[in-house]
Amino acid sequence: MLNESYRRMLDNKSVIRETFMYGKQRAAQIGYENVFDYSLGNPSVPCPAAFTKAMQKLLAEGDPVDLHGYCPSQGDPTFRAAVALHLAQKFRLPYTKGDIFPTTGAAGAISHALRAVTKPGDKVLTFAPYFPEYGPYVAGTGAELLVVPPMAPAFQPNLEMFEQMLTPEVACVLINTPNNPTGVVYSADTLKKMAAILTEKSAAYGHVIYLVSDEPYRDIVFDGKTVPYPASFYQHTLTCFSYSKSLSLPGERLGYVAVCPGCEGERVLVDMMAQISRFTGHNCPPSIIQRAVAQCLDTTSDLSVYETNMKILYDALKNLGFEVERPGGTFYIFPKALEEDANAFCLKARQFDLLLVPSDTFGVKGYVRMAYCIDTDKVRRSLPALEKLAASYR
Amino acid sequence: MLNESYRRMLDNKSVIRETFMYGKQRAAQIGYENVFDYSLGNPSVPCPAAFTKAMQKLLAEGDPVDLHGYCPSQGDPTFRAAVALHLAQKFRLPYTKGDIFPTTGAAGAISHALRAVTKPGDKVLTFAPYFPEYGPYVAGTGAELLVVPPMAPAFQPNLEMFEQMLTPEVACVLINTPNNPTGVVYSADTLKKMAAILTEKSAAYGHVIYLVSDEPYRDIVFDGKTVPYPASFYQHTLTCFSYSKSLSLPGERLGYVAVCPGCEGERVLVDMMAQISRFTGHNCPPSIIQRAVAQCLDTTSDLSVYETNMKILYDALKNLGFEVERPGGTFYIFPKALEEDANAFCLKARQFDLLLVPSDTFGVKGYVRMAYCIDTDKVRRSLPALEKLAASYR
Repeated sequence: MLNESYRRMLDNKSVIRETFMYGKQRAAQIGYENVFDYSLGNPSVPCPAAFTKAMQKLLAEGDPVDLHGYCPSQGDPTFRAAVALHLAQKFRLPYTKGDIFPTTGAAGAISHALRAVTKPGDKVLTFAPYFPEYGPYVAGTGAELLVVPPMAPAFQPNLEMFEQMLTPEVACVLINTPNNPTGVVYSADTLKKMAAILTEKSAAYGHVIYLVSDEPYRDIVFDGKTVPYPASFYQHTLTCFSYSKSLSLPGERLGYVAVCPGCEGERVLVDMMAQISRFTGHNCPPSIIQRAVAQCLDTTSDLSVYETNMKILYDALKNLGFEVERPGGTFYIFPKALEEDANAFCLKARQFDLLLVPSDTFGVKGYVRMAYCIDTDKVRRSLPALEKLAASYR
Repeated sequence: MLNESYRRMLDNKSVIRETFMYGKQRAAQIGYENVFDYSLGNPSVPCPAAFTKAMQKLLAEGDPVDLHGYCPSQGDPTFRAAVALHLAQKFRLPYTKGDIFPTTGAAGAISHALRAVTKPGDKVLTFAPYFPEYGPYVAGTGAELLVVPPMAPAFQPNLEMFEQMLTPEVACVLINTPNNPTGVVYSADTLKKMAAILTEKSAAYGHVIYLVSDEPYRDIVFDGKTVPYPASFYQHTLTCFSYSKSLSLPGERLGYVAVCPGCEGERVLVDMMAQISRFTGHNCPPSIIQRAVAQCLDTTSDLSVYETNMKILYDALKNLGFEVERPGGTFYIFPKALEEDANAFCLKARQFDLLLVPSDTFGVKGYVRMAYCIDTDKVRRSLPALEKLAASYR
């Protein structure tokens, strides 16, 4: 018989997906250029030329049996060594090849990291608002996701509530900085305090509480700043990364888990994740992509368009009287809706062909997410629609 | 805390892997060419030039944002449509795009198919000898793997025992033809009888028993024959395929589940598997590989070396008095060991630098698997070692 728990999920439509599909229909009616679709977090800039060149060189010069052959179950050694070196240089932590586990994107990374440090029945703590796929990632391990309430308007983690909710049943804490959907970067101060709480509670409970840090937007950061690196503050950190955004390769499914040097279980965690792969049918990301990306670690796509778009949107939203935090990174902004019900607000926005995502899907009420990974020209052309939307509430 | 069930697995070394690592050490001592390593099922021939050309064309001409972009969660539409057309033409079954779910190799395919048609506590039935990874694939779903005992010497499925063991708790049956480790192709007669039993028991129990058919070796078939296609005999079949062997692309991780037209739940199964991906972090195989392979479906690598090797080895084993079934496909042969304990036999073989895998790892005692995906020259040069091994038992 069909598995009913998966079967029933087909009745729950994703709001993001529904909005995107509506956008496609509407584009067929009035033209793609007239639909201001801020629904999907899909990179809008090409991968760097260095990636294409690396692929072409591998295909032209590599021995196909070797190039397309099975990776060891811990991943391609060249890629692992290159990532370790990159992280060691960037964050001044002594990562080595053995700390790196290549995965199919951040989805694979988070799924493996969570399975490694939880057992069924454990609790996993995250902070609202949060990426909705954390729900299935955690459910897949048999653990339970608990959510620390949000702290508007700045959306730094609510550390007071965090400390209260960090009970002995919590096996790990899952964070996301720069954050989807808010665009907020966790400050060094926040991470320092969070680490202190984790260290204290770990000692009090007699077991290490792991930090799983989801960082696919690490390279999209604004105002010339750098993103404070969570593992620098707390050594029991499994850092989950993806090249989907940094190199604009979301379809090629490459990411990694980096086990922080000094992390409890450092010696066995990567081997454990290779075992976990056997139970999910994951078995390594594609070989040629690992090898090509290994040659592009010190570059990124031209990500400047996201900052340009952010500034235009942030200024416009502020001028229109929206309550909104200025994003420090990502390609998201998270203004407060102009009525209590964010779903109603998003339906109203559709009247002006503005496609926004209500915050309910991220575990918070009353806000909307705008994904501004679109052409700057379209962002500019969307401003009159945004103005009409705001005017309709005056 | 670390998940102890995955942690403990690190203490159980894989015999195949241990044999392979021994071979590497031994090669360092006496030279790679003098170690007759039959341990690993790793394709020894290059991918077809058509694949490399398709990749190069995509990289040269494709729009990178589109080419490397996110796939829909059901997979790349071009690849899905091409696979459906290919299967429809080859097997005269009306597959359409909606029946095809692209996966990261056969591992991903089997894991998704099993999760779709079982729930925790169900039983999954397979036939010994069987690929050892079926253990974790089934365990990952929460179901229990039951094994129908083998039927030497021909190693067709034991249908009498199958019928007895096919109780109401069995949600699905997992088969593998052409078979790893025996090289045996399930006959049309076997599949016809198996289908009749499945149909009868499904009716008796009031629920469809699914067939999950693992077919990565479908294109490696000998003597100009074709492999009977299980879904042609039983419509409630989820066919799991991989391009690892047919196109020699094991590292690129591409395969699919094909839901047979008329299969119970056909309309929802692919969408369900897309949901299942969310729980395992799988989320589609690589985009560029799907697109390149879509252009190569009617070709394969030059697989003839496997048949050449099979004939040399089969004749040699027969001449030396081994009890052995002539493989109909794959790159494996499965002779009976010359002593009761296959492990002891394999250790003895190492004295002649012959690396074989004992059958215990495949759920059968007293046999060995030889993976002859190696150079024909080496197969020939290994014959004196095989002869010395046999002589040592006279």
